[in-house]
Amino acid sequence: MDFRPSPRATEISRLVADFIENEIEPIEAAYHQEIKRRRESGTGENWQELPVLKDLQAKARRAGLWNLFLPAGHEGPYAGRFGTAGGTGLSNVDYAPIAELTGRSFIAPYVFNCNAPDSGNMEVLLKYGSQSQKDVWLERLLDGQIRSAFLMTEPDVASSDATNMEVTASIDGDEIVLNGRKWFSTGVGHEDCEIFIVMAVTDPEADRHRRHSMVLVPRHTRGVKVERMLTTMGSFDEPHGHGEVNLSDVRVPMDNFISGPGEAFAIAQGRLGPGRVHHCMRLIGLAEKSLDLAIKRGTSRTAFGKPLMNLGGNRERLAQSRIAIDSTRYLVLNAAWKLDTYGPEGAISEVSQIKVAAPRMAMDVIDFAMQIHGAAGLTDDLPLAAAWTTARSLRYADGPDEVHLGLIARLELLKHGH
Amino acid sequence: MDFRPSPRATEISRLVADFIENEIEPIEAAYHQEIKRRRESGTGENWQELPVLKDLQAKARRAGLWNLFLPAGHEGPYAGRFGTAGGTGLSNVDYAPIAELTGRSFIAPYVFNCNAPDSGNMEVLLKYGSQSQKDVWLERLLDGQIRSAFLMTEPDVASSDATNMEVTASIDGDEIVLNGRKWFSTGVGHEDCEIFIVMAVTDPEADRHRRHSMVLVPRHTRGVKVERMLTTMGSFDEPHGHGEVNLSDVRVPMDNFISGPGEAFAIAQGRLGPGRVHHCMRLIGLAEKSLDLAIKRGTSRTAFGKPLMNLGGNRERLAQSRIAIDSTRYLVLNAAWKLDTYGPEGAISEVSQIKVAAPRMAMDVIDFAMQIHGAAGLTDDLPLAAAWTTARSLRYADGPDEVHLGLIARLELLKHGH
Amino acid sequence: MDFRPSPRATEISRLVADFIENEIEPIEAAYHQEIKRRRESGTGENWQELPVLKDLQAKARRAGLWNLFLPAGHEGPYAGRFGTAGGTGLSNVDYAPIAELTGRSFIAPYVFNCNAPDSGNMEVLLKYGSQSQKDVWLERLLDGQIRSAFLMTEPDVASSDATNMEVTASIDGDEIVLNGRKWFSTGVGHEDCEIFIVMAVTDPEADRHRRHSMVLVPRHTRGVKVERMLTTMGSFDEPHGHGEVNLSDVRVPMDNFISGPGEAFAIAQGRLGPGRVHHCMRLIGLAEKSLDLAIKRGTSRTAFGKPLMNLGGNRERLAQSRIAIDSTRYLVLNAAWKLDTYGPEGAISEVSQIKVAAPRMAMDVIDFAMQIHGAAGLTDDLPLAAAWTTARSLRYADGPDEVHLGLIARLELLKHGH
Amino acid sequence: MDFRPSPRATEISRLVADFIENEIEPIEAAYHQEIKRRRESGTGENWQELPVLKDLQAKARRAGLWNLFLPAGHEGPYAGRFGTAGGTGLSNVDYAPIAELTGRSFIAPYVFNCNAPDSGNMEVLLKYGSQSQKDVWLERLLDGQIRSAFLMTEPDVASSDATNMEVTASIDGDEIVLNGRKWFSTGVGHEDCEIFIVMAVTDPEADRHRRHSMVLVPRHTRGVKVERMLTTMGSFDEPHGHGEVNLSDVRVPMDNFISGPGEAFAIAQGRLGPGRVHHCMRLIGLAEKSLDLAIKRGTSRTAFGKPLMNLGGNRERLAQSRIAIDSTRYLVLNAAWKLDTYGPEGAISEVSQIKVAAPRMAMDVIDFAMQIHGAAGLTDDLPLAAAWTTARSLRYADGPDEVHLGLIARLELLKHGH
Repeated sequence: MDFRPSPRATEISRLVADFIENEIEPIEAAYHQEIKRRRESGTGENWQELPVLKDLQAKARRAGLWNLFLPAGHEGPYAGRFGTAGGTGLSNVDYAPIAELTGRSFIAPYVFNCNAPDSGNMEVLLKYGSQSQKDVWLERLLDGQIRSAFLMTEPDVASSDATNMEVTASIDGDEIVLNGRKWFSTGVGHEDCEIFIVMAVTDPEADRHRRHSMVLVPRHTRGVKVERMLTTMGSFDEPHGHGEVNLSDVRVPMDNFISGPGEAFAIAQGRLGPGRVHHCMRLIGLAEKSLDLAIKRGTSRTAFGKPLMNLGGNRERLAQSRIAIDSTRYLVLNAAWKLDTYGPEGAISEVSQIKVAAPRMAMDVIDFAMQIHGAAGLTDDLPLAAAWTTARSLRYADGPDEVHLGLIARLELLKHGH
Repeated sequence: MDFRPSPRATEISRLVADFIENEIEPIEAAYHQEIKRRRESGTGENWQELPVLKDLQAKARRAGLWNLFLPAGHEGPYAGRFGTAGGTGLSNVDYAPIAELTGRSFIAPYVFNCNAPDSGNMEVLLKYGSQSQKDVWLERLLDGQIRSAFLMTEPDVASSDATNMEVTASIDGDEIVLNGRKWFSTGVGHEDCEIFIVMAVTDPEADRHRRHSMVLVPRHTRGVKVERMLTTMGSFDEPHGHGEVNLSDVRVPMDNFISGPGEAFAIAQGRLGPGRVHHCMRLIGLAEKSLDLAIKRGTSRTAFGKPLMNLGGNRERLAQSRIAIDSTRYLVLNAAWKLDTYGPEGAISEVSQIKVAAPRMAMDVIDFAMQIHGAAGLTDDLPLAAAWTTARSLRYADGPDEVHLGLIARLELLKHGH
Repeated sequence: MDFRPSPRATEISRLVADFIENEIEPIEAAYHQEIKRRRESGTGENWQELPVLKDLQAKARRAGLWNLFLPAGHEGPYAGRFGTAGGTGLSNVDYAPIAELTGRSFIAPYVFNCNAPDSGNMEVLLKYGSQSQKDVWLERLLDGQIRSAFLMTEPDVASSDATNMEVTASIDGDEIVLNGRKWFSTGVGHEDCEIFIVMAVTDPEADRHRRHSMVLVPRHTRGVKVERMLTTMGSFDEPHGHGEVNLSDVRVPMDNFISGPGEAFAIAQGRLGPGRVHHCMRLIGLAEKSLDLAIKRGTSRTAFGKPLMNLGGNRERLAQSRIAIDSTRYLVLNAAWKLDTYGPEGAISEVSQIKVAAPRMAMDVIDFAMQIHGAAGLTDDLPLAAAWTTARSLRYADGPDEVHLGLIARLELLKHGH
Repeated sequence: MDFRPSPRATEISRLVADFIENEIEPIEAAYHQEIKRRRESGTGENWQELPVLKDLQAKARRAGLWNLFLPAGHEGPYAGRFGTAGGTGLSNVDYAPIAELTGRSFIAPYVFNCNAPDSGNMEVLLKYGSQSQKDVWLERLLDGQIRSAFLMTEPDVASSDATNMEVTASIDGDEIVLNGRKWFSTGVGHEDCEIFIVMAVTDPEADRHRRHSMVLVPRHTRGVKVERMLTTMGSFDEPHGHGEVNLSDVRVPMDNFISGPGEAFAIAQGRLGPGRVHHCMRLIGLAEKSLDLAIKRGTSRTAFGKPLMNLGGNRERLAQSRIAIDSTRYLVLNAAWKLDTYGPEGAISEVSQIKVAAPRMAMDVIDFAMQIHGAAGLTDDLPLAAAWTTARSLRYADGPDEVHLGLIARLELLKHGH
């Protein structure tokens, strides 16, 4: 249990913190106001990326703060060309505090080319993609030329049980034919989104964990239709967004299987561990940001002759927030360390634990911050509504709490021989 | 503690239930989709009331389901002409189950002309308005010709402490001059909103509870500017909405004081009790509606070979929801009964208790319903996101939890002589 | 939903309150100190009832405050002779506030001959006993000459599932033969405990709810052995106590079946509803008592220059306690009213709801009271340790929370046709 | 944040685990039964240490498992002679997992001479004692010849605010004269308890943190009277116990000030940090032990055709327990690491955080374990009642939660310049 980042990671963290403070924070409020203005204009231009983001990406890249998520030991030839910070990849323990920092801002992950689902998709291609898949898609993703989506959840079945999945990716001669409907496909709203990784059933008769495949489907393939963009708590999360996608006789070559047919579960296993650490560390950052706002408001507004923070149970809530954030941070760092030390198979319970703990902790802290802001707390004048929505969504995304709790319990009983 | 509604109220409840089931529920989904379509069109037509509402109002009125909130003993000549249900007004205990029913729908309160803030504003005029104020404004409100708003909360101060209030309503000769900024002024977005009740400081030197006045300000008075409409969790609540209003040298005649200068606290006291009972009973209805949805989803979707409701702790959460809803309902009915029996002065703690308890209960039940819906839970395909936002908002609106808890504690200590 | 007690019940409540204040409270601390002294003496005299109790019983009886639990409509000839308060029995709604009052004291229920399990056992005999069973046992119980116990829970199986029960009551000729082991048999420690009602399996082949019988077993029958008295959180609850009882070839006549063999479930159904209302109302009283103590301490001790109650979140906890107590009280009153109006079959969910809600509420309020007392909170200088233990025990006794939650959920789903 | 124990500490942990498993666990049940038998005998012999403890101490000492708490850098000449494990002292991070192991048993800390308050008292003497104080008292404590107590809390004032303290230690010529009353003086019940460290007011006029002194008072000094032993939830915690002590004109020489008059706060600061880490790690061990019991029961008992663990929300509670235990463990390890790295001044918030978090976590886990045991959960057949009492007590002991929360909040605000 050594949760210390390497000196290089510490140095990168410092640079990331400075970048966020000096380059991102000053433009954030205006950025979100402009997105809002565009959304309300009804012109659809809210789905166009604002130019400032490409500028920030370019700056971040020049500063070496690019593709920082690239996992140590897998980044091979890409590390040098596309990041990370002038060296080889970072361990999960190294990257965790960086993810925390980026979680304080809704645009920072994208600025550093470290946002979900692109980072996870790149990791899949890096670890499981063929050389040709890497050449065509990974290079451009690492370079920030294109974006990607990951199509897993389906509207018509409980996707918490992956065996329910109904979208098919059947083999027909030398082609894969995809049919069905996905939703909450994050990223499909972005104009640069060129490639989908679709999880689908290839062989319903195969062994339970060998039925599904991951298939690369270019966004502009015939039969692919993004039918609508979905809201979460009224928010579209432009310009990336979450879409509902219909796949109707979509045909791609056999080469588009990632790691071959029936490999989806094996790939998912490897993809999800680090991705969940990233999500959870970003939630830590989001909770810290929310607590900062709570303190700022609680010390600057007065009621009944005292700063709000000194009224009723507010100081206790502040203290409880500190305890909750810190204990969750160490839990996440432990999961990161386990992933680094024992690999995904050795960190299953730990990863599920943080997936349950971090969103709930963040919701509690954000709720406190909302409440101390009074009526302003739910408006879009502040990032709290979006923060709450992010945390709440993560109680479903990548598996609902209930599935993770079930898994943790099962492993706990296994330890006792049951 | 007799929480039984009168036979007439029971009959009205039955009619209201039928009306909601047969007239409102069938058009609700389409209604909300159309509002959404209009919002995204950017044309602003989301702020125009959809014609179906006026049709429903007319039907409700013909069925005698109009102004049902009219308080027994105060409605005088209006009961016969504008409701309620062919008779005199209803007690709070009578009206409570009706409010619960209307709370199952976001449009039902308006259809029955029983929505906040209009019902509270009508009650203020009924109890405290001059005859001329009644003739000009109350008649038209009871008739549904116009809508109203209540301007209390301010953006620049902690409005939880009313003595912080900065908007002024100064006397200048025979005019009242209003200056300052209000926000979360619910209803100002509606095209029929013609009259504001503004709470403001008239005499800062007066005794603490005699400083503030309530002033009738016609919406189209010079100097009144609705600067923007605010969102709560991304929602505008069209066509009523919550606005930020600037008042700049707004002049109205002295007659526009309600019950004279310095009377705001006395009026607020009388207005808020029943209004909070209405809010809380509607939250009970909203929680019941959410639980219905949870049960429907939990019994119709399957994962791991079982209906979702039979997995993990879901049945326990269902049972806990039932306990929470029912115990809160009885608490609210008790507050209603106390108001009926002892008046606002005799129900201060009870009203504060429900104001704290009902929103939290509703949030918990809605959260369970969200979670069992998986990814759909936060979309606007379902009313759950709006339901959560409503419940969350009510932890601020009409005073934040913390103020109510402080009041309850104070009264509790008083009982013990402290 | 009319939760108002009758005028007669209101008058009895007043008398009970006066009696507790004037007769019981003044001797309580000394009573418990003496029990403690005797316990620590090792002489076993802690199991002898202190004489003051018989004196108090005599006084209570003279004041007509005797057998107040006697259920309306069932008490027949006994009401006149043995209570209640000079008239016929009380409804559950009538008795509920009286039970609340007695719950403020650990000895009051016994003083009024209204303590568990005797009251439930008397109710069973009243409703289901033969005339001869009534003549022999009920008369003496109503008269306070003897005490009784109810033997249901078993140490070797999960008694939450009654079909697990292993103690047998087999028919052998004209005798019933009992074998097996029971525990948490409340009341067996009392020197006047003369009669046990034992629930046991008579016909393991019968239909699931027809297997078990209730059998009257005189305490001094050969083969009955109270092997030890059990503690809960270190407390023996002398002089009644909770015992572990071995039954070894215990023979009683066939007449000792209550209502015949196979009738145990039918009887239990009728017995448990009112008994749970009594338990829950007593917990309300216990919570109120604890809150009184919290307020007394919180206003009389000072730290950091303020009364404890004004520090941190204490006032919020006080207010939350008030909300929790009151909402639970109305929930219990509703269950009482349902029992009165629709009978046990019509109040199954309501009774289970209070059985879950009341102990948890009481634990929370008591915990707050403990905490504000600092180190004294867990000592036996105060009744808080005993109060907590009582509330905690009731999360198992008469069925664990989990069974009740399961039942509530099942009935909820049934309402929706599942 | 390097939470890894040193190789030597890991080896000691292994030896401690083996010792507990092979030497302590086999005798524990009988030990507690014998204490119980003696308590109920009324002879007072429950206050005599059972011989098995001295045997176990001797064995532990021979195995080098003695005084393991001795803090690195302070143990000087004592490490070699009295422990620890053949070397110099252990860091807090080193000792934490050992404390966790000993927390699984109520007698293990004593067997290894690592129990509170002796370990804290030894640490005080080690760090702040004069050579003569060390020679007379520390040597014998390290040697296990005598026991000690720490007299801080007082019955008549809120001791959470140390400035309330009323016991005085006045200077009278060349003597210190102590007067007043202390309680919850842990350890005074033990027949070997020879020395008290008393915290008392020496100069009420001095600066707020310079008024109090710590004074060594031999237990058998004239004027010292242990008036009674106190229970917590019915338990005396023999043979150590918690006493109420009257000090009446108790005179000791001036040399008995530890580190001089007015030094109590400075000493307490140094003493409490590691002590709280020990308490909290032991609570982690206690929670793990309780969870083991829950799993054992939940998988071996059956109801409704399934192991209890598979019913309702039990598996979710198991998983939540794992999350709670682990996140708290890392929080405690972080506090240990902070103490090692930055000293007590650098770990104030961290130490307060664990003091709040660990007891609550333990209470929740123990409550789950109790509930799954049904009626047995509160008896003394299982260690759960004692475990709960231990955890609950620690929400007061060494400062109530509320004081720690206030401190954490203050430090949090300080970080933001308030």
